[in-house]
Amino acid sequence: MKRVLLTVAYDGTNYHGWQAQDNANTIEAELNKALTDLVNEKIEVIGASRTDTGVHALGNLAVFDTNMQMPAEKFSYALNARLPEDIRIVGSCEVPVDYHPRKTGMKKRYEYHIYSAEFPSPVRRLYSHFTYHELDVEKMNEAAQYLVGEHDFTSMCSVNAQSDSKVREIYDINVRKHGSEIIITVVGSGFLYNMVRIIAGTLMEVGMGRKEPEWVGEALEAKNREAAGPTAPACGLVLVGYEE
Amino acid sequence: MKRVLLTVAYDGTNYHGWQAQDNANTIEAELNKALTDLVNEKIEVIGASRTDTGVHALGNLAVFDTNMQMPAEKFSYALNARLPEDIRIVGSCEVPVDYHPRKTGMKKRYEYHIYSAEFPSPVRRLYSHFTYHELDVEKMNEAAQYLVGEHDFTSMCSVNAQSDSKVREIYDINVRKHGSEIIITVVGSGFLYNMVRIIAGTLMEVGMGRKEPEWVGEALEAKNREAAGPTAPACGLVLVGYEE
Repeated sequence: MKRVLLTVAYDGTNYHGWQAQDNANTIEAELNKALTDLVNEKIEVIGASRTDTGVHALGNLAVFDTNMQMPAEKFSYALNARLPEDIRIVGSCEVPVDYHPRKTGMKKRYEYHIYSAEFPSPVRRLYSHFTYHELDVEKMNEAAQYLVGEHDFTSMCSVNAQSDSKVREIYDINVRKHGSEIIITVVGSGFLYNMVRIIAGTLMEVGMGRKEPEWVGEALEAKNREAAGPTAPACGLVLVGYEE
Repeated sequence: MKRVLLTVAYDGTNYHGWQAQDNANTIEAELNKALTDLVNEKIEVIGASRTDTGVHALGNLAVFDTNMQMPAEKFSYALNARLPEDIRIVGSCEVPVDYHPRKTGMKKRYEYHIYSAEFPSPVRRLYSHFTYHELDVEKMNEAAQYLVGEHDFTSMCSVNAQSDSKVREIYDINVRKHGSEIIITVVGSGFLYNMVRIIAGTLMEVGMGRKEPEWVGEALEAKNREAAGPTAPACGLVLVGYEE
């Protein structure tokens, strides 16, 4: 028996998020189906991030155990032949049998994409959040720095978050402009429910000039969800991946 | 009566190209429907580029005549409210009544996107042509320079092309790498049927090392479609727009 780690990329547009659930099309369910079919054993993967409906990923992680003799590196090719085109296994390797994808201590990198222009872009509509507001990227970047470090992020997670502790550490956050897109990159130890989308919605308040950068620090200290900005839409969010 | 010029962006994935035809979903048909509904006159737009099935555009052009009193600049907003999300009017203005979008003498800019990696990307699958081959961008760029200038492009257009003259002028062509994508940009006086896709397929032969850069010059001089490379898929092609 061996444990295989998959690196999974997907376009979340047509899925009800990662987690398998009854009567809904999910990434996890597609993986379980393709794997069960391939190895001829009943497989249920363990995923690293339970991304929401409409959220994309370049490098989510999942593991499963199998008795199949095929080398772990070959699983990516064999699975891609069975998966829909909007899900791709972009890497597979063998890991120790006690490896757990949510207990690796690795950093997690997210990007949030905002398309700021007079009119939306048809070719970016599924992968960015459109706003006709002009955004002050410099001020957004200044505001973002209040979030770096270990903090109680109660203000920046959904009131439905189930975690006991709301303390997380952000190692790095930056806001840059690339053409018509503003890209917020956040690297952290882990993220609470809706945390990156609330950070994006909060930084947009500053970018639009409705709030000053210092307000983000105050919102964080308030430890109250109502003190921060709105939750930005799912389509702009992409889980880039895990890193050492 | 006034003539209104529309700048049209679209995701070509779900359309049978630009040109209206029976029983097929096309960009032109969607525009005609939305406009006829808006102005309450029977409208048939005249388009600048008849892009193929699956080809995208950031700035195709179309004109129509109307007696409606609304300022030309407002048409973009009014039409976007009636069009599907994968088609957006990104500009509208009044032009002289004898303005014809295919007779402006403007330059036309195309991009062809190739995604070169070990595995395809789900979020770029609709907007780039995937290859697992590594491509030598420098050699592709060197090869591309044989195409600059006024030439008979018989070797690089579909045998089904209907134009009498196969002479066109390419003002500028370059190949660059951005992350996992190789982007071929071509600016020209006009393009023959499938010309940019054949140029892309031909330059890829060089990028993969199957041919040397000089071969592109020889293929051009042969004035024979069979002398050039294959036609690259439609999804990688985007009509960026028209320019002075």
